[in-house]
Order: sequence, then C-alpha cells, then structure tokens
Amino acid sequence: MAPTYTMAGGKGPNSYSQHSTYQRALLEVAKEKISEAISTKLEINSASNRFNIADFGCSTGPNTFLAVQNIIDAVGQKYGKETQLNPGDNIEFHVLFNDHSNNDFNTLFQTLPPTKRYFVSGVPGSFFGRVLPQDSLHVGHCSYSLHWLSQVPKGIADQNSPAWNKDIHCTGFSEEVAEAYLDQFKIDMGSFLRARGEELVSGGLLFLLGSCVPDGVKMSETMKGMLLDHLGNCLNDVAKEGLINEEELDSFNFPIYPAHVAEFKSVIEDNGCFTIEAFEKISHANEEFPLDPEFLATTNRVTFGGVIESRFGKEAMERTNELYEKKCPEILPELANAKSGMQFFIMLRRN
Amino acid sequence: MAPTYTMAGGKGPNSYSQHSTYQRALLEVAKEKISEAISTKLEINSASNRFNIADFGCSTGPNTFLAVQNIIDAVGQKYGKETQLNPGDNIEFHVLFNDHSNNDFNTLFQTLPPTKRYFVSGVPGSFFGRVLPQDSLHVGHCSYSLHWLSQVPKGIADQNSPAWNKDIHCTGFSEEVAEAYLDQFKIDMGSFLRARGEELVSGGLLFLLGSCVPDGVKMSETMKGMLLDHLGNCLNDVAKEGLINEEELDSFNFPIYPAHVAEFKSVIEDNGCFTIEAFEKISHANEEFPLDPEFLATTNRVTFGGVIESRFGKEAMERTNELYEKKCPEILPELANAKSGMQFFIMLRRN
Ligand SMILES: Nc1ncnc2c1ncn2[C@@H]1O[C@H](CSCC[C@H](N)C(=O)O)[C@@H](O)[C@H]1O
Ligand SMILES: Nc1ncnc2c1ncn2[C@@H]1O[C@H](CSCC[C@H](N)C(=O)O)[C@@H](O)[C@H]1O
Repeated sequence: MAPTYTMAGGKGPNSYSQHSTYQRALLEVAKEKISEAISTKLEINSASNRFNIADFGCSTGPNTFLAVQNIIDAVGQKYGKETQLNPGDNIEFHVLFNDHSNNDFNTLFQTLPPTKRYFVSGVPGSFFGRVLPQDSLHVGHCSYSLHWLSQVPKGIADQNSPAWNKDIHCTGFSEEVAEAYLDQFKIDMGSFLRARGEELVSGGLLFLLGSCVPDGVKMSETMKGMLLDHLGNCLNDVAKEGLINEEELDSFNFPIYPAHVAEFKSVIEDNGCFTIEAFEKISHANEEFPLDPEFLATTNRVTFGGVIESRFGKEAMERTNELYEKKCPEILPELANAKSGMQFFIMLRRN
Repeated sequence: MAPTYTMAGGKGPNSYSQHSTYQRALLEVAKEKISEAISTKLEINSASNRFNIADFGCSTGPNTFLAVQNIIDAVGQKYGKETQLNPGDNIEFHVLFNDHSNNDFNTLFQTLPPTKRYFVSGVPGSFFGRVLPQDSLHVGHCSYSLHWLSQVPKGIADQNSPAWNKDIHCTGFSEEVAEAYLDQFKIDMGSFLRARGEELVSGGLLFLLGSCVPDGVKMSETMKGMLLDHLGNCLNDVAKEGLINEEELDSFNFPIYPAHVAEFKSVIEDNGCFTIEAFEKISHANEEFPLDPEFLATTNRVTFGGVIESRFGKEAMERTNELYEKKCPEILPELANAKSGMQFFIMLRRN
C-alpha cells in the first residue's frame, strides 16, 4: 500500500479541525461564486428527487460542512426558483465525504452539524481512483487537497538519479526535479479527472479550489515555498543534532506539488471530459499567512507533522517544530518580500 | 442526544473485532439461505448497473465484510445465470455500512478486505431513523443488532413507577417491566421497518438475523438471560464494595430486549410494507455459549463493557468483569440447564 498523508486527527489543540481557518476563508469567498455557478450552469433534473454531492479530501471537518452546505443552499435556491416547490420537501441530498481510509472519520462523524438536512456517507479511499459508482454524482468539490501527490516522484529520492532532490519539495530551481514533480502531477491529476469523469453525471459540476503557483514564479519565491525551505532547514538542524539520520533526510521529500496555472489547465484539457467554465485567481482574507512564528509553527505542525512523525518519529517531529518556531523570526524579512502565490477557483462542467 | 451503545472499538485484545466469532457463525450458516433467497426471490433489474447493499449495525468488522460478500456473491451468480454476462464487468456494487456515529468507523475503514470489489460508504446514524435516500437500496442486512433498543423504556428506571426494574434487563418475571420493554421494542422496531420501507426499492430484500426468545420462554430462563442476571449480581457486588453508587445501580438498565417470536412477527405485520418470505429458527455451531468462564467474561466485556464504563467508570467496569469471571463457575450448573434461546433468520420482501 502506498503511504498516505492525512491531517492531524481529533479535536484537540494540535488537530486540523482546530487549525483550518486559513482554508476556511477560501470557502467563504468562494460561496458566492459557487452559488452563481450553480444558478447559471447546473441543469436540475426536477424529475429526480435525489441530489448527490461529494467533497474529495474532506479531512475531519469542519470546513467540509461549510463547503457542502454552500452547495446545498445554492441548489435549493435554484430548485425553488425553477419549480416553485420547497426544496426541503422534495429533494433528498446525499453528501459523500471522501478522504484517505486512514483519515479520522470518527471525528468527522461525531462533529456533523446537528442541523444538517442531508444523508451522510463517509467514503474512504484515494481520490486518484474511483471511489463512487458511475454517474452517481451531481456536484463534486475539492479544496486544498490537489497539491498532494499520490507518491514522491520517481528518482527524486535516489542519490544516483539526475532528479535527486536534496531539498524536501519542488523549490523550482532544479529543472530535473521540477520535471519529475510535474510528471507525477500530470499522472495524478489525470487519474483524478478520469475518475471524476466517470462518477459525475453529464452536466454535473466539479469545483476545485486551492493553492497553485502563478506561471513564471518558482515555488521557493513564494511564502509557502519559503516556509517549506525553512522546514527543510530545521529538519537539517535536527539531523545534525542526531535525532534524524542525515542520509534518510537527504532522500526525504514531501509528495506535494502546487502546480503552475498553465500546467493545471493543460491536464484538464488533455483529459477532455470537462469544459472549463471558470479558472480564476481568487483572494481571501487569510491569503498570505500572518508573519507570526507561533501561527506558522502550528500550521506547519497540523499539516506536515503527521508525515514527519511517521517518517522520523515523534521526538524528531517535536524538536523540528520547536526549532521551526524559534528560528522563524530570522526569515520574516524574506517572507515579507515573497512573490504572491495564488489561490485558484476552478469550475468544470462534465460534458 | 440519546446515549448510544457501541461495541468495543479498535483491533486490540479487548475489541469486538477480535471477539465476534459467535456472531460470525450465524452468518456462515445463513450464507446458503441468503443465497437461495436471492436466487429465487430477488428480481434483478438488468437495465441498471448499480446494486446497493446496506448492513445496519455493522460494528467495526470483520463480520460485516462476510455478510456483504455473501450477498454480493449471490447477486453475482444470479445475474450471471440470467444474463450470461460477467457480473464483475457489468454491476457496480455499492456497500453502505451503517452504525451509530460513535461506532469506530476508523477501524472498519482500515480493515476493509483488500480484495473487495465494491464501493464503500460508512453511514453514521441510528437505524431507527432514515439514514439513506428513498428507493436507494436493493438488499438490506442486519445481524445481532435488533435487540438493542433506542433507549431504556420509560418508567423502568423510576423507583416510583410500577414498571420500576431493580434488575438490569427484562428478565421476564415482572409483567409491568415486560410490558414497558415490549412497548419500547414495538416503537423501535416499527421505526426501523418504516425507515427501511422508504429506503428499499420495491421488491428489495431485507435480511434480519439475531437472537430472540421462543414464545412462552422467559429471558431469564435462557442462558443469555442468566448471564445478564449474573452481570447484575456482579454489579451489585461492586456497588457493595463502594465502586458503584447503589441507587444509581438500582436505576440502571440495559436498553436491550430480545423479543419473542410472536412479538417480532406482529410488528412486521403491523408495519405492512413487507411480505414475510421466511421467519425461521436457525442453528449454528456456537449457538449456546461454551461453559467457559474466560470466554464468557470476554464476551461480556466487549459487548457490555462500554455501556458499563460510560455509566460507572473504568475501574468499576474492570472490577465487575473480574468478579464476572471469578464467580462464573458458581452458575455453570444452572447455565447447563437453561432453556434454549433462539436464533432467527427473517427474510422480508418490500411490497
Ligand atoms: N489521494 C487522496 N485521496 C483522498 N484524500 C486525500 C488524498 N490526498 C490528500 N487527501 C486529503 O486531502 C486533505 C487536505 S486538507 C483540506 C481539507 C478540507 N478540504 C479543507 O479545505 O479544509 C487531507 O485530509 C488529506 O488526507
Ligand atoms: N440504533 C442503532 N443504529 C445503528 N446501529 C446500532 C443501533 N443499535 C445498535 N447498533 C449497533 O449494532 C451493533 C451490534 S453488534 C453486531 C455487529 C455485526 N452485525 C455482527 O453481526 O457481528 C453494534 O455495533 C451497535 O453499535
């Protein structure tokens, strides 16, 4: 089984569910766009009373609840306008929450909104494969998940390969490394779109949101890239202190790749199942992280702590995080001058 | 929120998943009956490639995997015979695993059979209400779950009520208590059937398996009843030792009621949505528990330990279980003379 990378589970102080307001802000600004898209682009089959919505990479909540409620509200409004009927009495919404099978679904299920008016399913499994029956989905949603690759690109971890990467992510400065990451992204994103193409009904909508990199910008020129470089430096320090084996660290890479705009577009076009209805830059309040070492360290911990711990152990993870926060002030001036990253809002319609 | 009662989670030595061979034995003998029922009573719509199966009260596995696989195999065989097509290429099975939202779904999802050929959903929520969309289910299954009521019957825990029960379950010896339990069973089983009636397609099948009590027999005359009485005695001892408050114990009851055959039948008839295709006694190898104190104590612990712990704390639960095993030899002669309980196999067809 391929290793999987999930967010910190539970509801405690170091959990994703307590530290996902950054991601939440994007959903809040996307609400209106999604609402408009559904009102103008979705055809509602008023003969059927069933409407299925899936969130791919839902994590443990609570953001996913907001995301699906926005969609339900928009569909309900459109239905009400078109039919003059009360959607609550006539449509049964079924929400399918997808994430890796080692995601903390228990927390998700135990924190479902008490006022929800939809049927709930948790759907375990990688979204790079099929997880739902054919033609069973009306609207799909996926936020802040598509930068996770299915695996570390081939060659990257191999010291004898030209694509060997001593950094822990795709900084953008080595062509071979960038190519290896891009190849993996193309494979994965292609699989994602193929699977969704089979699951979505014709005319169904797919909303993709998250971080990408503007064309011409290198990851390590953005704040998020710099923070990953900072994490890499801290891991190096911990290796020098002896808690991490240096060679193991040299071959350690995060399977993440925030693609460039043009790369994203070309994979969608190559897939051919979807019409791109929107591909926009979208801004939100928390877009650039606040330059606050404590905040940055906590964000780093809930997002990447699990991967580091599973690879190097808990003590190394704790120490890394400690250094991360302590040394953060050194990089604040650099962060302040970073090039902008980009948050994307993509809307695809199944042909 | 009403309290819910789930089996011991995880995969450890005290987990349900390690101690459910008793229940499993019933599924093994039911396999043939289910297979035959599907072959003769199910109409397969060969125009649709979708087939949805739900297991209500699935717990953490592994029994549920066996139950649904038996159904899938039988449907596949029937499909193959009728259409001469390979079911694997033509039908997409979607399995919906239902249990309380505080069931350990994480364990369920992490132990899915690697060779499974179906889509998976975990469906959290009480099966006494709707958990699935209308007309979305082809075959439902529920084993060893319907003796759990939604709540302790009204009056039972109230020392001033004529139905006040000093015992911890419905022994069968007090008429008022028995009536209160039966009333609750009728309400709950009625809700269960109403919900399944809406979820199942017309012609869909519902298999119900579990323990009930033969007409004319009192629960406390059966081995399972005697074991509950034994548990009650041990809880009393622990109360005398001071770990449990005696008054609290006096008002403590298990929300379980293995109904009598006639009671079960009449609720189904009153509901009116289903035709009873089979209502049989079914025997299995492990049917009467082995007279082995260690086995009995472990079974007691994984089944009822959670309820006891959540009400009286971990220490009281541990102590109760210790006494349960230690004092078990005293009741072995009585157990050896118990009247037979009954395992039922019910097959209902949605009208
Ligand atoms: N291949 C894959 N299949 C399913 N889920 C995946 C995945 N790769 C990453 N994920 C999940 O994607 C999530 C990213 S965190 C984002 C959570 C949520 N959508 C929000 O916006 O707040 C994690 O829970 C991770 O487990
Ligand atoms: N109202 C309810 N709704 C959903 N699940 C329920 C329920 N009442 C009891 N259960 C579940 O029923 C299960 C009984 S244990 C039986 C498990 C499995 N069917 C087997 O045969 O091995 C428990 O997991 C319990 O949580």
